[in-house]
Amino acid sequence: MAQALNGIRVLDFSHVLAGPIATNYLCMQGADVVKVESGKGDTMRNYGGESHAEGLGPSFVSVNTGKRSIVLDLKKPEHLAVARKLVAWADVVVENFRPGVMERLGLGYEACRKIRADIVFCSVSGFGQSGPLKANPAVDQIIQSMSGLMNLSGEPGSPAMRIGFPVVDTFTGMLASLAIVTALLHRGRTGEGQFIDVAMMDAAMVMMVSVAGPYLVAGVKPVKQGNLGYSKAPTADTFPTADGEITIGAIRQDQYEMLCKVIERPDLVIDARFADRGLRRKNAAALRAEVIDAFSSRTALEWEQLLNDAGVAAGAVRNLWDAFAHPHLQARKLTLPVQLPGEAAQAGNEARVLNAGFVLGHDNPGTDKPPPRLGEHSREILQELGYRQTEIDRLLAEPAEQH
Amino acid sequence: MAQALNGIRVLDFSHVLAGPIATNYLCMQGADVVKVESGKGDTMRNYGGESHAEGLGPSFVSVNTGKRSIVLDLKKPEHLAVARKLVAWADVVVENFRPGVMERLGLGYEACRKIRADIVFCSVSGFGQSGPLKANPAVDQIIQSMSGLMNLSGEPGSPAMRIGFPVVDTFTGMLASLAIVTALLHRGRTGEGQFIDVAMMDAAMVMMVSVAGPYLVAGVKPVKQGNLGYSKAPTADTFPTADGEITIGAIRQDQYEMLCKVIERPDLVIDARFADRGLRRKNAAALRAEVIDAFSSRTALEWEQLLNDAGVAAGAVRNLWDAFAHPHLQARKLTLPVQLPGEAAQAGNEARVLNAGFVLGHDNPGTDKPPPRLGEHSREILQELGYRQTEIDRLLAEPAEQH
Repeated sequence: MAQALNGIRVLDFSHVLAGPIATNYLCMQGADVVKVESGKGDTMRNYGGESHAEGLGPSFVSVNTGKRSIVLDLKKPEHLAVARKLVAWADVVVENFRPGVMERLGLGYEACRKIRADIVFCSVSGFGQSGPLKANPAVDQIIQSMSGLMNLSGEPGSPAMRIGFPVVDTFTGMLASLAIVTALLHRGRTGEGQFIDVAMMDAAMVMMVSVAGPYLVAGVKPVKQGNLGYSKAPTADTFPTADGEITIGAIRQDQYEMLCKVIERPDLVIDARFADRGLRRKNAAALRAEVIDAFSSRTALEWEQLLNDAGVAAGAVRNLWDAFAHPHLQARKLTLPVQLPGEAAQAGNEARVLNAGFVLGHDNPGTDKPPPRLGEHSREILQELGYRQTEIDRLLAEPAEQH
Repeated sequence: MAQALNGIRVLDFSHVLAGPIATNYLCMQGADVVKVESGKGDTMRNYGGESHAEGLGPSFVSVNTGKRSIVLDLKKPEHLAVARKLVAWADVVVENFRPGVMERLGLGYEACRKIRADIVFCSVSGFGQSGPLKANPAVDQIIQSMSGLMNLSGEPGSPAMRIGFPVVDTFTGMLASLAIVTALLHRGRTGEGQFIDVAMMDAAMVMMVSVAGPYLVAGVKPVKQGNLGYSKAPTADTFPTADGEITIGAIRQDQYEMLCKVIERPDLVIDARFADRGLRRKNAAALRAEVIDAFSSRTALEWEQLLNDAGVAAGAVRNLWDAFAHPHLQARKLTLPVQLPGEAAQAGNEARVLNAGFVLGHDNPGTDKPPPRLGEHSREILQELGYRQTEIDRLLAEPAEQH
């Protein structure tokens, strides 16, 4: 059974997170992704300076499973020649160096399209290939600061708070993947390749469309409102319980009345302070106190069941490991088993990786190939490119240096 | 000049946010998106119960510009017949009703593929088309609770904190768009359409890959650490200044020394408490106090300039409207002007919408068409489907009811 991107060849010069996430999506849909690494390898192999068995640290495995790895020192002419042969082999080139680096290596878009006219070439960077900030260093945290992302979460008036994981990297990687697949579709229809410029800063703005859009259209400025929902109904919020917290969404009058019934407080329905939506917002603090009092008698998981059974949207606040353990996500087959070689396997539990996150009717995303050890496929790839055995031995004999 | 999805026809039954975001990406790349609405229209036209001029509220305009609108009452046989003709017309169907609704209307995937064998049919939902929770109501906040997203941001030990905008809706829409374009690529290569199942809950897990991945691979559980970076270096964090806050990323020894130089505190380099990374982490509170003291002499924007000039990654915490005003984002051409009809135009400022967020070498995303008024294109679309004038008059004469 063929996956959607079977036969598509991706030459991946990217490292760390956003670029590898982009090629992970391509890989999970059947593309042959060749990851070019320096002799030191992608820093994610040993993330945070920690050394991991066979260079297969968890962060690396998470977004590189199924790819192949070749080690090249792009400062050496004979290794650069290999890279150029790989460009001729490839349908897609992905890179996330700082703007200008690929050009200096002789591997920029213009150089690549001379080798392969219909190449789809995607550059992923912090600020993009144009604009006054293009040369600035960028990590997720800095982009979260500059984009406005850090001023959206938290209680009113609270200091800036970042989203506690590199959400911009992730979104950027996915946006790059979308752009690449779109360009492949375009190539299929017209025969033309093209250059794609994806930037973390741009991606952050697009990610905020639900608040950035209304600002652009009509000057509406978003305000922080903690966990309170957009309706500002005090019963669309997050509450403590006997054990854990729960988020509920009782907005309409019928939902409010059902909530009161489930928490066994029918008096709150007829309480003059809470008679309609306006009054409930006006007396929000008093209502919140009543709900907290009522919720103290059961756990968040118990309330979740009771409220959903009654048709009131409710979800206990979970940790992500509890979410994965939920029978629902087990049934969704969201993850894949991953084969780790000897030492790395012993270091982990039953290792799994996330699949692409969407389910296709046939030819589903996924891979049964392991994550690559550094340079694991160097020899095999050189053979595929037509190098003779003596040339391969010579190329592999010289220890590659970091580029 | 043709855009990548020119000639692709999308029949869009979706409403509110995740579905319309998916089709917005398709529209921005040239697809002809026909939005099917009930007589009441997409609730986002008048979001939060507020009435907007011509039903073109800012949230609606943000993600529906360039689409066409037809009003159909799918409970009426003659209107359902129009919908079925539109399926025959379409390359792609997108819907985000609760699972089962399209089947009951006679417009489920199996029914649609009988009309058009190679249809790409994408269902977007809260929990997906399978699994025990598939019938549960889902809004962004509930998914943020249940997925673990609300337990990632904030200070250690702090209560659950949602990301302050519907980030899951956005990510889900983009994931759906990626899946659809992939399926179109697949169709181009094989002639086959397919069914695509995209769920907000799945999307939330995939969005957290940077922390969910390491958990799945090796049982690593994420911990909250406020604005402190992953390095846990106390000088990779967010600080108050004379005016506003700033995030900096001084991790390596050379970056730390440069920071000390820029803030004119060379004594901190030789201070025994801060002599290396380990000591700085050990004496983090003391170092933070020193940095805050130093930063109090200038504004965040001044420090941003000084630090970047010295090669230390730094970004002032901005609001999103300040980010849009930055010369860099102005240069990136991230947004498009949008034409609003009379009344709606007067309500807004100079209205703009976000483009797709990536830049293509040619055939760039974008649209010069306005957002549709409710049913604006009903007549035109019926004509395109081949209905005669008398039939059209009859279909349009009957006021459609909400489905």
